[in-house]
Amino acid sequence: MTETLTLHEDPRSGNCYKIRLTAALLGLPLATRHYDIMAGETRTAEFLAQVNANGRIPVLQIGDRFLPESNAACWYLAEGTWLVPEDRFDRADMLRWMFFEQYNHEPNVATLRFWLHFIGEARLSEHQRAQVMPKRIAGCEALKVMDGYLATRDWFVGKGPTLADIALFPYTHKAEEGGFGLGDYKAVCRWIARIEGLPGFVTMD
Amino acid sequence: MTETLTLHEDPRSGNCYKIRLTAALLGLPLATRHYDIMAGETRTAEFLAQVNANGRIPVLQIGDRFLPESNAACWYLAEGTWLVPEDRFDRADMLRWMFFEQYNHEPNVATLRFWLHFIGEARLSEHQRAQVMPKRIAGCEALKVMDGYLATRDWFVGKGPTLADIALFPYTHKAEEGGFGLGDYKAVCRWIARIEGLPGFVTMD
Repeated sequence: MTETLTLHEDPRSGNCYKIRLTAALLGLPLATRHYDIMAGETRTAEFLAQVNANGRIPVLQIGDRFLPESNAACWYLAEGTWLVPEDRFDRADMLRWMFFEQYNHEPNVATLRFWLHFIGEARLSEHQRAQVMPKRIAGCEALKVMDGYLATRDWFVGKGPTLADIALFPYTHKAEEGGFGLGDYKAVCRWIARIEGLPGFVTMD
Repeated sequence: MTETLTLHEDPRSGNCYKIRLTAALLGLPLATRHYDIMAGETRTAEFLAQVNANGRIPVLQIGDRFLPESNAACWYLAEGTWLVPEDRFDRADMLRWMFFEQYNHEPNVATLRFWLHFIGEARLSEHQRAQVMPKRIAGCEALKVMDGYLATRDWFVGKGPTLADIALFPYTHKAEEGGFGLGDYKAVCRWIARIEGLPGFVTMD
């Protein structure tokens, strides 16, 4: 990697942390530029024109090119390293869990953390309030799928950590901030400890 | 590809069609097994135990292994072919649009199609009804991001079609079944015609 890597991020975001964790595990230097998503700093005309027309972080800047979407950025950093399996099926299976994370896990587990921990229940809109329980149920279902899968495995794909684990870790290990009790998910708790024990591991905060 | 490929699908699902379209463009033989998602056929104990513990289709069966998540299945079929760019940044950028599709596009554009075209507005729950307008706005935003991007490009990544186009095509070209007017998105309409003109293209129905 010869080009400068800069992460456009809000440090409170688990999607941003994924990329920092991937870089840390791989020993890649990563500059950061901070935005306050609560203050709308990723919706300015300048941000939309230059960084991401979708108005979201994280965005990984590689030289003068911009790559949105957390899991795509992790892929960019990790392709060809030990965090991406060499076997064709396993590589696709890793992506399977990364898509599961963005579709089934993040919109429920991460959104409830954002609403309840950062915005605060009293300040939710009526529409948000009506979605708390459906998102609670869907988030529990995602954690249950993970727990069932990890009951007989140490990692999501193959015999070692991959980007599937990195993608699912941030919002899972902070799930209690969204009101999810992790005590029911014993295999998930053991997997969290396994990730925290990886050489080069860095914490979210 | 020496192992038998079987797609576990509901033909009405755009996520399933992605995989069929990928296989068709690549000339790969693909057997299919049909399920009726409206009748709960992907939530049976047998399906959950053998095919996908997450209770969803599509699942691509490769020999005796099962790969859920539409975009992961497309990746498995297309890796190493002309549908996946050779350049490292472009490959990650392709994944960026595939994650965008699952996070920003599908939960809005596809869900409204499912609710309004297949379930029917009169039969929606109160909770679903309250989500129609937020999903309408978020779906329009996703289409606007696509249209702005395609205003100066023929394809999402590089100079030819990739899985990014295949992933975004199914629910976009059926968006009017979800109550989205495509007339405002001129660049998207031109891109739809471009995809329909690809050699080997197959329709959804």
